Amino acid sequence: MTHKIAILGASGYTGAELVRLIATHPSMEITALSADRKAGMAMGAVYPQLRHLDLPPLVKIGEVDFAGVDLVFAALPHGLSQALVRDLPAPVKVVDLGADFRLRDPVAYEKWYGAPHVAVELQKQAVYGLTEFYREEIRGARLVAGTGCNAAVVQYALRPLIAAGLIDLDRIICDLKNGISGAGRSLRENMLFTERWTNVEGYAQGGKHRHLGEFDQEFSALAGRPVEIVFTPHLVPASRGVLADCHVEGDPRAIHAALAARYEKEPFVTVLPFGEAPGTGHVTGSNQCHIGVIGDRVPGRALVVATLDNLTKGSSGQAVQNANLMLGEDETAGLRLAPVFP
Amino acid sequence: MTHKIAILGASGYTGAELVRLIATHPSMEITALSADRKAGMAMGAVYPQLRHLDLPPLVKIGEVDFAGVDLVFAALPHGLSQALVRDLPAPVKVVDLGADFRLRDPVAYEKWYGAPHVAVELQKQAVYGLTEFYREEIRGARLVAGTGCNAAVVQYALRPLIAAGLIDLDRIICDLKNGISGAGRSLRENMLFTERWTNVEGYAQGGKHRHLGEFDQEFSALAGRPVEIVFTPHLVPASRGVLADCHVEGDPRAIHAALAARYEKEPFVTVLPFGEAPGTGHVTGSNQCHIGVIGDRVPGRALVVATLDNLTKGSSGQAVQNANLMLGEDETAGLRLAPVFP
Amino acid sequence: MTHKIAILGASGYTGAELVRLIATHPSMEITALSADRKAGMAMGAVYPQLRHLDLPPLVKIGEVDFAGVDLVFAALPHGLSQALVRDLPAPVKVVDLGADFRLRDPVAYEKWYGAPHVAVELQKQAVYGLTEFYREEIRGARLVAGTGCNAAVVQYALRPLIAAGLIDLDRIICDLKNGISGAGRSLRENMLFTERWTNVEGYAQGGKHRHLGEFDQEFSALAGRPVEIVFTPHLVPASRGVLADCHVEGDPRAIHAALAARYEKEPFVTVLPFGEAPGTGHVTGSNQCHIGVIGDRVPGRALVVATLDNLTKGSSGQAVQNANLMLGEDETAGLRLAPVFP
Amino acid sequence: MTHKIAILGASGYTGAELVRLIATHPSMEITALSADRKAGMAMGAVYPQLRHLDLPPLVKIGEVDFAGVDLVFAALPHGLSQALVRDLPAPVKVVDLGADFRLRDPVAYEKWYGAPHVAVELQKQAVYGLTEFYREEIRGARLVAGTGCNAAVVQYALRPLIAAGLIDLDRIICDLKNGISGAGRSLRENMLFTERWTNVEGYAQGGKHRHLGEFDQEFSALAGRPVEIVFTPHLVPASRGVLADCHVEGDPRAIHAALAARYEKEPFVTVLPFGEAPGTGHVTGSNQCHIGVIGDRVPGRALVVATLDNLTKGSSGQAVQNANLMLGEDETAGLRLAPVFP
Repeated sequence: MTHKIAILGASGYTGAELVRLIATHPSMEITALSADRKAGMAMGAVYPQLRHLDLPPLVKIGEVDFAGVDLVFAALPHGLSQALVRDLPAPVKVVDLGADFRLRDPVAYEKWYGAPHVAVELQKQAVYGLTEFYREEIRGARLVAGTGCNAAVVQYALRPLIAAGLIDLDRIICDLKNGISGAGRSLRENMLFTERWTNVEGYAQGGKHRHLGEFDQEFSALAGRPVEIVFTPHLVPASRGVLADCHVEGDPRAIHAALAARYEKEPFVTVLPFGEAPGTGHVTGSNQCHIGVIGDRVPGRALVVATLDNLTKGSSGQAVQNANLMLGEDETAGLRLAPVFP
Repeated sequence: MTHKIAILGASGYTGAELVRLIATHPSMEITALSADRKAGMAMGAVYPQLRHLDLPPLVKIGEVDFAGVDLVFAALPHGLSQALVRDLPAPVKVVDLGADFRLRDPVAYEKWYGAPHVAVELQKQAVYGLTEFYREEIRGARLVAGTGCNAAVVQYALRPLIAAGLIDLDRIICDLKNGISGAGRSLRENMLFTERWTNVEGYAQGGKHRHLGEFDQEFSALAGRPVEIVFTPHLVPASRGVLADCHVEGDPRAIHAALAARYEKEPFVTVLPFGEAPGTGHVTGSNQCHIGVIGDRVPGRALVVATLDNLTKGSSGQAVQNANLMLGEDETAGLRLAPVFP
Repeated sequence: MTHKIAILGASGYTGAELVRLIATHPSMEITALSADRKAGMAMGAVYPQLRHLDLPPLVKIGEVDFAGVDLVFAALPHGLSQALVRDLPAPVKVVDLGADFRLRDPVAYEKWYGAPHVAVELQKQAVYGLTEFYREEIRGARLVAGTGCNAAVVQYALRPLIAAGLIDLDRIICDLKNGISGAGRSLRENMLFTERWTNVEGYAQGGKHRHLGEFDQEFSALAGRPVEIVFTPHLVPASRGVLADCHVEGDPRAIHAALAARYEKEPFVTVLPFGEAPGTGHVTGSNQCHIGVIGDRVPGRALVVATLDNLTKGSSGQAVQNANLMLGEDETAGLRLAPVFP
Repeated sequence: MTHKIAILGASGYTGAELVRLIATHPSMEITALSADRKAGMAMGAVYPQLRHLDLPPLVKIGEVDFAGVDLVFAALPHGLSQALVRDLPAPVKVVDLGADFRLRDPVAYEKWYGAPHVAVELQKQAVYGLTEFYREEIRGARLVAGTGCNAAVVQYALRPLIAAGLIDLDRIICDLKNGISGAGRSLRENMLFTERWTNVEGYAQGGKHRHLGEFDQEFSALAGRPVEIVFTPHLVPASRGVLADCHVEGDPRAIHAALAARYEKEPFVTVLPFGEAPGTGHVTGSNQCHIGVIGDRVPGRALVVATLDNLTKGSSGQAVQNANLMLGEDETAGLRLAPVFP
């Protein structure tokens, strides 16, 4: 059976990545693509790498006919999904790749996103889309909220450790190296090629990054007490990939064992042998997440390194993985692509 | 039916690319991987991006059991395939990704490769692997010689034009921009990151590049007279991709029409609307070739621009495409991956 | 004696490059910096690499006090210099880095820039700023028009050959590889890091690039007949540097000899031994231009390769070189910086 | 007065960088260049960016005539300086850019470098070359030991804080992002362009990096007790630059005040306004170090970010700065170059 898919916000990078993944998906068919500012254009004109595919034209979101659509991927700027999802016909399932439904608490939402939530009832029903930890809820959900890409990679590294009480909750320092595609395709001076190519630089340090809302929500729930990590992302001259160095206090061998056990049967999360750490190039273009654990020369200190492709496992790949569950398909359908290297 | 595949020289980039492609191929299974210098290692240790796959260990070439193998991909350094292929059991089909069987004339081989050919009989039987132009011969071949990556991209741009007599044969200037992966994984000072990252530079200009042997052979045969193009490759700071600017004399509209007609039904070659030219980023990681034609302000001058990913359509993807034909499979099996961008 | 300098349009890349060069210039002092959109900011806030320098604040152009200013560098968007220069106090000398005064013919100006020239008298007085070929005129000029960066590199390669009648004037093909900084700091989707990092791509091919106005003017004057070259620029993933491959018909040895003789005493143009070609990384950050000549296997064909840093020798370094002449200083003052590599 | 300079190991990147800096130094002249494996070549053939300079040819180290040489820069592989320096004529001053004399304790040397020191007496006399903290000793020294590039950047960030007791000594986590040039020009598979361009990856994590010998020595001496920091370097796809994120526990405002006070009069260290952090692109090619301090949302946590160009302020620029002091010149001579950006 082929599921009919609409992608809203198809002109952004996560939209294009969804099209790339669905192009070889055995049971999904794209029937509508929206992109307000580029309505009227062919997807292959907006993204020439998709020229060879047979795709519907880009239309304005109001022109999409949702009758017959089984599932919508909403890859819209933050804030636009709330009213949209509220007004969709009931049988249509939704995977939202934006931030609108990630936080369950309206107060937290307003704190991090600067405006009140306008679909609070939906917000309560939304399932958090970190597949490996919310698999059963996702299977039955109508609305799944995709995680932030940074939020995903750090949670893969830390959730099993926080759940098992293996690390000091007050001393978690996450230092991230981020490919530039995480900033999307919008025009900002500091995202020009010339500005980033020779310039490694941090941003939103010190507790200002919005993904902290997700960490606070998830880690505090897991720990049963408030947890506030240090979160320091950086822009590095690469397009895809996030490398998260999580500096923690705990027993390195126990940490490795907990992660290895937790992910042993997961198709998309690989734990490396103790003492090895991954690089971003090991997962590019794939739905894989690689995790390594290294012990320090000082006992009681450990480094947990996790990496994934922010556009795939960190957003669009995760979205397809969740959609597979929601539609009753094999979770890995369309996602077995091996990484592209070099 | 699943075909059993051996990859010889699996530790090079084209070897790894073959593994990547076959990982999602519906009817190929890798049963042997050889790599002399890295024998004994796991493929996932040599290429961490392949960690998640279930693969046979790397062995020395002499340790491969060819019984039961249906097809061998030989991704060996130039010169090593000749004796090897000669000594393989007869039913095993071979796609050679190296240069050993590209030139039909032993004299030309010795001129460009500096040593006499040691398997002249086989050399005669080998079919040149430019799929779209040797499709029927490839279907029935036991031995197919993969083309050079530069040789492929320029031939896609020019063969229909030379065949139709549309361009001046004495004034063909091909200026190429090449990603660094074409140089392979061998250790050379000028291939260090630091040497190439900020340094766009030509090489082997003036008629010294070995791929000229292929151009001379193919274009002269097509034209029925000697054709010697100008061929000027460059190293640009990118990993994958070749962009070939072919500066020719002829009528731009007629050139475009000839290319569009020739490739209309080809699944892997796309001709852009007249006046548009492709970029390397439009085909990365895919088996696609994009071609554009632009007319100059001076009548009678034209620019034909072609691009492909040297590791995919320029070598390993081409190899799989040819293997599909040789094994009776759908030509596009395992090769429908959309390009990765950004 | 210290000359007082104003830089107009200091917030663009050529403006910042002027500040970098003047920072170690022995006889220039910056007394005013303008940047309309960033007026009120410190230069070190707009360009943190200039934080350690003691510089005047950015002001609006109308707020600059030109009394006491000896020379103005105008690094403004095309079209803005015409009225500005016309209205400057008479004793102020001007080096214009934009396109407003490059073309002597108002008809040609309107053809390439799409609007009539508003300071036609000045246009006639302006000296074309290719230092090595207009040195004496520049020394006595009040207004010098800096060349386009592409225009500079190709002219270094070809002027002596056209002047000496060494090459076929109807078959000059110039294929350029350009760093992204040539596009400036303005916001355009196709200049985002993500759009350019993995995407080598041509632009303005076929006779559409504005620098052709300069080539037509200069080469036709030199040859005494119309000359229209083929000019094909490309964006490569690098910040600085232009590599110009000039494919010509002529005797390679004679071409090399003519270039070597012409530039033997030039401090900023180096001709390589016959058969060698330069890379962009050999001149980064310096005022050097390197030129190489390679003969083809087919007699009568030659490749002339020239490279320079578009922000230095291609614009701001050239501007300082010209200003040195206009102010009676040593031509190389402040410009002896060796290239930065790797 | 012009000082006569010999550079030993001139074919490595730090050697080439010394030549670049000395090219515009007002009182240094290069009279000898050695490079064992490239002896007989011109420096401009080994490094084409230096073609325009008038330089002595490369010779073997045994062929250098040290008579008349005032100062030697030894940019040799680790281990080779010890015997060499011991055997130099007494009046020749030495700046060693390698690791041979960084550690004062022979036991520590053997621990980190795996072999006993062969010039223990010299080792005791060597002055540690972190200019801003050993200025007076350097002025009178015959032998100065250049610091590691990582060692330099982290010490600039932390020395004033450790000295003032402002941070928790048991919880210092330094996460570094390193340009690839720090690995030098030697042939290693993991330093190929293709291996590093799309692959952000840590190395030598967990207490294995040799620069820890320097941190242990310096920080423990400052604190009067053992200090063992966490040190996690990474390879990012850039050529130059190190960004050090030092995650510490202490009062952010007090930390910023201490750094600002300490470096107020230093010509090459700039402390940014509180709350701002630098990027590597802000110092490329210069002798500048930029430092920023950011407070976390959780009181008592701070981030100190420091950056410098590993080839300049991190090695060859530091070496020239020290040589200036040793030779009685202005400390900033030849080092006022502004950074190159973009």
